[in-house]
Amino acid sequence: MKRYEQLADEIAGLIRAGTLSPGEKVPSVRRASQSYGVSPSTVFQAYYLLEDRGLISARARSGYYVRQQLRVPLHERQTVASQSLAAEVDVSDLVFSVLSALRDPNTVPFGAAFPCPDLFPLARLGRSMSHAVQAMSGSSLVAKLTAGDPDLIRQIALRYGVNGVALAPEELVVTNGAMEALSLCLKCVTQPGDLVAIEAPAFYATLQALERLKLKAVEIPVHPRDGLDLEVLADRLETLPIKACWFMPHLQNPVGASLDEDKKRALCELITRHQVPLIEDDVYAELYFDAQPPRPVKHFDREGWVMHCSSFSKSLAPGYRVGWTAAGRFTERVNRLRLMTTISASVPAQMAIADYLQHGGYDRHLRKLRQTLKAQQTQMLAAAAQYFPAETWVSPPAGGYYLWFELPEHVDSLKLFRLAHAQGISLAPGPIFSASQRFVNCVRLNYGYQWDEESERAMRTLGGILRSEAVLVSAG
Amino acid sequence: MKRYEQLADEIAGLIRAGTLSPGEKVPSVRRASQSYGVSPSTVFQAYYLLEDRGLISARARSGYYVRQQLRVPLHERQTVASQSLAAEVDVSDLVFSVLSALRDPNTVPFGAAFPCPDLFPLARLGRSMSHAVQAMSGSSLVAKLTAGDPDLIRQIALRYGVNGVALAPEELVVTNGAMEALSLCLKCVTQPGDLVAIEAPAFYATLQALERLKLKAVEIPVHPRDGLDLEVLADRLETLPIKACWFMPHLQNPVGASLDEDKKRALCELITRHQVPLIEDDVYAELYFDAQPPRPVKHFDREGWVMHCSSFSKSLAPGYRVGWTAAGRFTERVNRLRLMTTISASVPAQMAIADYLQHGGYDRHLRKLRQTLKAQQTQMLAAAAQYFPAETWVSPPAGGYYLWFELPEHVDSLKLFRLAHAQGISLAPGPIFSASQRFVNCVRLNYGYQWDEESERAMRTLGGILRSEAVLVSAG
Repeated sequence: MKRYEQLADEIAGLIRAGTLSPGEKVPSVRRASQSYGVSPSTVFQAYYLLEDRGLISARARSGYYVRQQLRVPLHERQTVASQSLAAEVDVSDLVFSVLSALRDPNTVPFGAAFPCPDLFPLARLGRSMSHAVQAMSGSSLVAKLTAGDPDLIRQIALRYGVNGVALAPEELVVTNGAMEALSLCLKCVTQPGDLVAIEAPAFYATLQALERLKLKAVEIPVHPRDGLDLEVLADRLETLPIKACWFMPHLQNPVGASLDEDKKRALCELITRHQVPLIEDDVYAELYFDAQPPRPVKHFDREGWVMHCSSFSKSLAPGYRVGWTAAGRFTERVNRLRLMTTISASVPAQMAIADYLQHGGYDRHLRKLRQTLKAQQTQMLAAAAQYFPAETWVSPPAGGYYLWFELPEHVDSLKLFRLAHAQGISLAPGPIFSASQRFVNCVRLNYGYQWDEESERAMRTLGGILRSEAVLVSAG
Repeated sequence: MKRYEQLADEIAGLIRAGTLSPGEKVPSVRRASQSYGVSPSTVFQAYYLLEDRGLISARARSGYYVRQQLRVPLHERQTVASQSLAAEVDVSDLVFSVLSALRDPNTVPFGAAFPCPDLFPLARLGRSMSHAVQAMSGSSLVAKLTAGDPDLIRQIALRYGVNGVALAPEELVVTNGAMEALSLCLKCVTQPGDLVAIEAPAFYATLQALERLKLKAVEIPVHPRDGLDLEVLADRLETLPIKACWFMPHLQNPVGASLDEDKKRALCELITRHQVPLIEDDVYAELYFDAQPPRPVKHFDREGWVMHCSSFSKSLAPGYRVGWTAAGRFTERVNRLRLMTTISASVPAQMAIADYLQHGGYDRHLRKLRQTLKAQQTQMLAAAAQYFPAETWVSPPAGGYYLWFELPEHVDSLKLFRLAHAQGISLAPGPIFSASQRFVNCVRLNYGYQWDEESERAMRTLGGILRSEAVLVSAG
């Protein structure tokens, strides 16, 4: 552990113990530097880390203050492992009933799966679309139908290259969004009845895909900050005939955890040694808050066992339905399966995105998008600190647009979901993220919409519901 | 059989017997009316029918002549039934090797799966797309992502209504082209190992879908003119535990046959009585040459056993990837499966087509498209009559853009395929349309491209190859 991390832990200890109370000013950088015997820059780093963890916040020209806040522990609760080693998956009815409620346009969209569409450059993309369809010739259209738009593929390969993953265009398969890429990859490497390692909690679409293909889930716990538990995974790969892994090593949905680079390398070595394909779901690749883009597990993949899947749906063009996979040694199989099931992603959508990537200013847009999301995360954290019960736990992720709240133990998030919906607030209850319907006291909230008075009121309302008896787990 | 059909058969008999030779003038309408004791209009009808069958052709101001022609029999060969009752399907390697050759842009595209893209109003559609993306709001986009574009759905429902199928918008699921609609429907109503009734010959994607889902094919013969053999189907439904049917009752791919309305009604009654879902693949719905649009089997479906699938890919917007299904009692299941596999068809593509359907002049475009295809069919038939061996059989279909040629018995169409490809001509060999790799002496040729000297030369080249020994089935 580095010195500034130690320092951050010490100060966090003071906050937890109540020595530093909510609202109180933390020592100035100069004073802390003197009393702890460290450089001012170490103090700054420690304070940044504490800010990042939601423990303190800066006020302009005044220094740092302990937040009116959740008790964010330095070492968050370890999510417990599943009791059964491999579970049949049967969540679709629950998921669909929740998702249909989430579609109600008159609710505060904390349960939404996308960030606010107004964050995307839809008008600029529209101009790219107009250019694209004007330039569209009949013969090129037919060629692109089976092979994908070569300009788009080149642009995607370029972005991989910049991020340290050298890929030939032939290694990319363009799909109808990341969802199709993930489905095709999973289908390619499994047979009904096979075991697949997934995260716990996991993105509900992962659970549904397993259910649909009659696969069994081996749940690997995800730590809210450190991500996937590689020790448990190593044990399961050793002892069970796992045929595939499907993980989100970066900004995991729902908890938001990311593996660091060492763990990504270790994960790649582990699955390569076992020759078990890894479906790397990286749809939030572009939504990091750090200065540098994190490298995917695919970066370490020398033998082609990683099937890296992503899309433009969360970063640029929701609704266009353009995603892709770099599927390593499985590329040809995935490509054939695509041709047999949907043939192709929409060609005009591919051309529009290719044009935008070349001329639209994607990186500028992304920088702005990240800033906005980061600011909104801070606002939701502050509101949660103010309104939610003190026994709420959260680990603010370094990107994306979700916060995963572990509520007091006796809260039933499905009850919360229904009570909140009655008050015009949507949220994503924990059990839809679990093959074994655990995480009953957890919710995923979306901060991807503009933060306003209504958001603030909704957080206060949720806090009120959380304090009522109606939300408690029924006895027996 | 009606009187004019009898008359047509009699005259066809004279042609086959050589009593009327190629190039010879057939009796004038007046003379035939006298000698057969029928009205001139009956003679006209008979001659139209003969012309339709490719047996005679009109010369301006001179009357009808026997064509330099294939011996198109009045009662074409009955396609033989499969030996085994239910077959494992394993065609993908063959199909993919053929399809990849078909993609070569430097060949005469007789093997193509689409008509020439220049036949479609791509520029007008592009304007619709520009309007659509300019009008696109963020919030509507997210709503359309799960439910489909309501304007598009309304337009599709309207077209069904005009054609005698009353559908509520909720009964329609918008998909990534018809291919996804068909895949989802099949997946919804089957389990691995199930028996599925398909046509013989069948569209190769049907065979691939069965192979992918590990289903077994029960092949029902398709008569080149009358279409699916309902007696064989009735017997199979009686004796085998068939779980689904997948047929093209209109302009069947590859042979081009269509069921008449009585047979469609009978087919609907049959599957309803057995409670076996029918996937009605109707992608050529709009490409009929008759004055009136034929009604789909779905028209007769009172109990929701018919899953009618179609798209805009063959009639308006190739590459946009917008199709749909009206899946009767299975609609909700299909819709859920869509949400779990690809989520949605591209929203801009849906909006562009919706705008075009309202303002673009779809019916005018379709009338022109049908005329063009019909004229090109006549040209290909004439060239085949001139260049192909006399023992070639064909039944010109009443629509679409394919002709299915049954070549002399000892021709190996895979050899023909390779020899033709070496000479820059593509074609679709018979075995790719068969679960049991039959139809070795058959080919499907596409007449959906503008007929020119190159087409004519290519037909002559094919005729030359067909007369060479290199194309014969190897002994033993």
